[in-house]
Amino acid sequence: MPMLPSHIAYHVPVARWEPNTRERLVRAAAELFAEQGYDATTVSEIADRAGGLSKMTFFRHFPDKREVLFTGQDMMGRLLAGAIAAAPGPATPLQAVAAGLDAIAALHTNDQREFAVRLRAVITGNAELLERAAFKRFALTEAMTAALEKRGVPDPTAGLAAELGIRAYYRAYEQWSVSPSEQTLTDFTRRSLDELRAASATLD
Amino acid sequence: MPMLPSHIAYHVPVARWEPNTRERLVRAAAELFAEQGYDATTVSEIADRAGGLSKMTFFRHFPDKREVLFTGQDMMGRLLAGAIAAAPGPATPLQAVAAGLDAIAALHTNDQREFAVRLRAVITGNAELLERAAFKRFALTEAMTAALEKRGVPDPTAGLAAELGIRAYYRAYEQWSVSPSEQTLTDFTRRSLDELRAASATLD
Repeated sequence: MPMLPSHIAYHVPVARWEPNTRERLVRAAAELFAEQGYDATTVSEIADRAGGLSKMTFFRHFPDKREVLFTGQDMMGRLLAGAIAAAPGPATPLQAVAAGLDAIAALHTNDQREFAVRLRAVITGNAELLERAAFKRFALTEAMTAALEKRGVPDPTAGLAAELGIRAYYRAYEQWSVSPSEQTLTDFTRRSLDELRAASATLD
Repeated sequence: MPMLPSHIAYHVPVARWEPNTRERLVRAAAELFAEQGYDATTVSEIADRAGGLSKMTFFRHFPDKREVLFTGQDMMGRLLAGAIAAAPGPATPLQAVAAGLDAIAALHTNDQREFAVRLRAVITGNAELLERAAFKRFALTEAMTAALEKRGVPDPTAGLAAELGIRAYYRAYEQWSVSPSEQTLTDFTRRSLDELRAASATLD
């Protein structure tokens, strides 16, 4: 079966307000996974690379080495849900979705693009990580769907709008991560949402 | 984050033409997982329940106990791709998608509904299985997308059409599995696709 795993590429929001230890652990893990492979890398090595930290410190932040790569899922879900809830009352489903995507796109600065590409290579090279990434994508879609339903958007429209948004975001993220331009992830995401909305309107 | 795992419910095509041993192993595994839990069940117990088979026989059919539950993925991907490729030249993307869904819906007979419900409970109760199920759904969407692109459907329309189809199928499968009516999964899937197509046309 053809598999285009880059479509469930990994998005790591290394937000500036995250505690520094956590961010250092994420970066150390990504470096080691890229250098020597995911399977070969131990939690001790990650903690050590992050500045001589201990395994115990690692486990105060993450349950295992896999979850380092998916640390952003809950925060992204909360940002999406919060922005969708906060969208103006008359906003259409896709306008609310756009507000949600703006909230998560703002987590990324352009100096993180190289890091994003490195991480995608780690994820797409490992079946277990690909499954986890597919679940993350699914969970974010469900978070958006639930937030839209709370606004009164009926089923199945809410799910379709959420799915269109997530698809636009992942597409934009992939384009952005390899783009030499100075456009931000927010620019890419907005354009991608417009393109998908236009393509969806012609579907039959 | 809200999680509605029934949306990635498990679809096991226990096709009538599958070798009997394979089908017996799938049914034995599902029974044991439902009775005593997924984690507590061993490959030896599955093989034994399937009619006194050996572990070795099990491993001739499946790499591990988890994959028993996802045995249909490759076959479903091939059926989807084959039917989409075989759709008449002038068929629209969604007409080709409908042909693909008809091909996989026909794998299920109404006497499999109870089995489907039991399996969904096993999957939704286990994080590892949910991740695997999310990946299966993703892989089927990718298989449809690739088949549509081979017909000349451009990106991003192909992905959107595939996603709409998979969403319609999973929705139909869930409704069908708990329906007391005599309608088939094919009936549910066609109606679901019509509903999603109509909802999609009003998206904005």
